[in-house]
Amino acid sequence: MNDLLLRALRSEPVERPPVWFMRQAGRYLPEYLQTRSGTDFLTFCRSPELAAEVTLQPLRRFPFDASIVFNDILVPPAAMGLDLRFEDKRGPVFRDPIRHPSDLARLKIPSVQRDMPEVLETIRLLIPQLDVPLFGFAGAPFTLAAYMIEGGGAKELENVKGFMWRYPEEFSRLLTLLSDVVIDYLNAQIEAGCAAVQLFDTWAGGLDPQDYARFAAPAARRVFEQVKGAPALYYCRDSAAVLPALKGLGADAYAFDWRIDLGTARAVLGTDVPVMGNLDPVALYGPEEVIREKVREVIQRAGPTGHIFNIGHGLTPGTPVEGVAAAVDEVRRWRW
Amino acid sequence: MNDLLLRALRSEPVERPPVWFMRQAGRYLPEYLQTRSGTDFLTFCRSPELAAEVTLQPLRRFPFDASIVFNDILVPPAAMGLDLRFEDKRGPVFRDPIRHPSDLARLKIPSVQRDMPEVLETIRLLIPQLDVPLFGFAGAPFTLAAYMIEGGGAKELENVKGFMWRYPEEFSRLLTLLSDVVIDYLNAQIEAGCAAVQLFDTWAGGLDPQDYARFAAPAARRVFEQVKGAPALYYCRDSAAVLPALKGLGADAYAFDWRIDLGTARAVLGTDVPVMGNLDPVALYGPEEVIREKVREVIQRAGPTGHIFNIGHGLTPGTPVEGVAAAVDEVRRWRW
Repeated sequence: MNDLLLRALRSEPVERPPVWFMRQAGRYLPEYLQTRSGTDFLTFCRSPELAAEVTLQPLRRFPFDASIVFNDILVPPAAMGLDLRFEDKRGPVFRDPIRHPSDLARLKIPSVQRDMPEVLETIRLLIPQLDVPLFGFAGAPFTLAAYMIEGGGAKELENVKGFMWRYPEEFSRLLTLLSDVVIDYLNAQIEAGCAAVQLFDTWAGGLDPQDYARFAAPAARRVFEQVKGAPALYYCRDSAAVLPALKGLGADAYAFDWRIDLGTARAVLGTDVPVMGNLDPVALYGPEEVIREKVREVIQRAGPTGHIFNIGHGLTPGTPVEGVAAAVDEVRRWRW
Repeated sequence: MNDLLLRALRSEPVERPPVWFMRQAGRYLPEYLQTRSGTDFLTFCRSPELAAEVTLQPLRRFPFDASIVFNDILVPPAAMGLDLRFEDKRGPVFRDPIRHPSDLARLKIPSVQRDMPEVLETIRLLIPQLDVPLFGFAGAPFTLAAYMIEGGGAKELENVKGFMWRYPEEFSRLLTLLSDVVIDYLNAQIEAGCAAVQLFDTWAGGLDPQDYARFAAPAARRVFEQVKGAPALYYCRDSAAVLPALKGLGADAYAFDWRIDLGTARAVLGTDVPVMGNLDPVALYGPEEVIREKVREVIQRAGPTGHIFNIGHGLTPGTPVEGVAAAVDEVRRWRW
């Protein structure tokens, strides 16, 4: 078993950083499109054989040091009773978003085993086939609340902020409820065999620092306090302005987008805190010499211990396969 | 003449911060929609009587301490020969974007007097009618290049980054050309009567810190070195990660989005550097007590000198007029 990821997460000496890519299974791979074809996206996520197959696809092409179970962060809200559809142009859409505190009564407290067993089955199918650690993951409570209140992805976050400011007590209760769901969900993924888990706080970077500290941070902290048995990572896009607050969340490592110098991040977090990141995913479009130069720059800035190489955001559907290959190759050539 | 803005820009003692809002003239005002109705957007920007009228509209409703000439940042690229349309759903669209270095030969070097005289006429119409300082503005070179290469607004910046990485020399030449256009344009606006100017670097926050330092920063610095006769401000959305680089740009003040604590920003920039910002524009959707509390928080964090109150991004079309009124009122009630 390749244990480079786990050694880096313990800040042990490594000859090069481990490498994997957020959304490394996805639409940039022709074999993914073929497997995915004809199946509704939510059904696809909930089909263990198919989800396991696409989880394995990038590992057949690239020598990644970790895998991540194929799934969607909105599976738990759907299991809580919200009607979720994935529409071709708009992405995820909740037909009955939460807009008023009275809507909270509609939410069920899900059981992972009863309402979301598929991800556990996918993990169990994957473990015997893998020689790299498998990540589980979940959306962070604020980010899940944002989707549930906006009714889908939303740039300005008008609805979730409006709810949060008008009904701060009820919003905090929703975050606590979502924290508990996420805690059970991540612990079950660890029990099923995941060697690490990641919490994705995609939308929390849109908050001002006071609201981040008041709402998003305590909910994420609650998750990290209660997830046990495997390292837990935190990813928040646009987190440069809340960097000093991150360490208090209690994650085992922090992942960053490409807009921040990892050296600067580590100076604030403390060099004993492992970091993950942070190549600009658009750099993978090439040219190759720029990809390789930027890869070396990221590694150099992160330093020799406690760094997991990744991109700063999920792979985009148009990414050339050769760009991914060049970046992975350059990380693997590195020697400290 | 209300000189509160200019006193704040000189870090002189003030009893409260001056206040104005980015995009304070715009679609959230019914009278704007009425004036704008039936006229193509680019024609509208280039119609001095209409542009002056909508510039004045917010001042009739709210006691702002500054105004900003109504215009669009894409007027200079259009004057350079690119075919610009504003489409209802998509926003600005260049039908013939720059995609290859050979496309640069299509660009004309415009004369402000000959190719963009309308903004100067708008300013001249406005000056006798105003008792507050008038801002002129321009897009920053990187941001203009991004629009010209993407062909419009673009979240991922794939095309402009691809051009920049493939053809770094040619891209730098384009930035220098755009800097020179912007310098002439801003100096002409100052000569026509503007008391301050602002450079909008809307897209530069999408770059990693190395690319920001290599491309966007030198181009903006060139502008600030050569704009004379009035204070010049720099606004970059998502600038928290490049904060240490900002001071080197040589602007007279820096405007921030809502994701950063102005106290933190001032600690890095030095408290002698004036700052502008940074209420979350979504907060204007209410409720009123949250608006007022957040206004006070921004003022408190910015401190007693060298602060101009603003929102952290342009007013959005759906903003309630009462939200704007409450925020402006709360700033005006403040006493240091």
